[in-house]
Amino acid sequence: MPLPLACLPPAGKSLQVSHDLPPGCALVDLPVKGDSRGSLIALEGGGDVPFEIARVYYVYATQPNVDRGFHAHRKLKQFAVAVSGGCTMVLDNGKERAEVRLDRPSRGLTIGPMVWHEMRAFTPGCVLLVLADAIYDEGDYIRDYSRFLAMVRG
Amino acid sequence: MPLPLACLPPAGKSLQVSHDLPPGCALVDLPVKGDSRGSLIALEGGGDVPFEIARVYYVYATQPNVDRGFHAHRKLKQFAVAVSGGCTMVLDNGKERAEVRLDRPSRGLTIGPMVWHEMRAFTPGCVLLVLADAIYDEGDYIRDYSRFLAMVRG
Repeated sequence: MPLPLACLPPAGKSLQVSHDLPPGCALVDLPVKGDSRGSLIALEGGGDVPFEIARVYYVYATQPNVDRGFHAHRKLKQFAVAVSGGCTMVLDNGKERAEVRLDRPSRGLTIGPMVWHEMRAFTPGCVLLVLADAIYDEGDYIRDYSRFLAMVRG
Repeated sequence: MPLPLACLPPAGKSLQVSHDLPPGCALVDLPVKGDSRGSLIALEGGGDVPFEIARVYYVYATQPNVDRGFHAHRKLKQFAVAVSGGCTMVLDNGKERAEVRLDRPSRGLTIGPMVWHEMRAFTPGCVLLVLADAIYDEGDYIRDYSRFLAMVRG
């Protein structure tokens, strides 16, 4: 399905790609409780997840060559982990773009508010788990990239 | 790894296996937000998950022929979903045993307190996601089956 043009970064205005993550975003190596039975990872609000958990969702059965996301949140904080398979998270604060590969259950990514994010390069069978600090609120979404840029650039 | 004998139901005292779930336990068909891109399932406290979410954990890389669990909780409420692959959850309230196959991301299982539970028959690559209403507290665990039986049978 082609994306609305308003969701795409303007052609010819590609942002500088950075290895640093935008402010409010951070990668976390999660401690694995492993033994001869297998592995377990626990997430608690106020621990590795820097907020209380109000909502949990998972993205799965993503079709080949599909990119997802293409929005920012005004206030929402999120924490993402690929608990099976992997995908690439693109983070964009209007000044720089960074890419992070989420490809193991022990790699968590905090995504702060006002960060445009896109998900791509899903492996078959990828399950992307996301924890959020608030329940669903459509009014918190910014789905138009030009509007997002205007907001972050003042 | 062999389990401690105290964790196993006493030989020769197998409980009646029921198709009904113990009180406090329930299966839920979760609504799938699906479109041409793929699927997404969201869980919010007070919605399909009948409590506020304090802790999220996932069990993965379970070794072949390994059974897990073998405990009950005094107070903890949990909500389990196999977001990838599948496993069988055994639920035991001291009077009856029930078995539930969790094998799709849209099948959620509430597990109430004072229910002995065991997980078995994990498929390779299974990821069992569990939401809980409290943070980790070792004092809430009952890990001895004989003690559990004594407690529920008064």
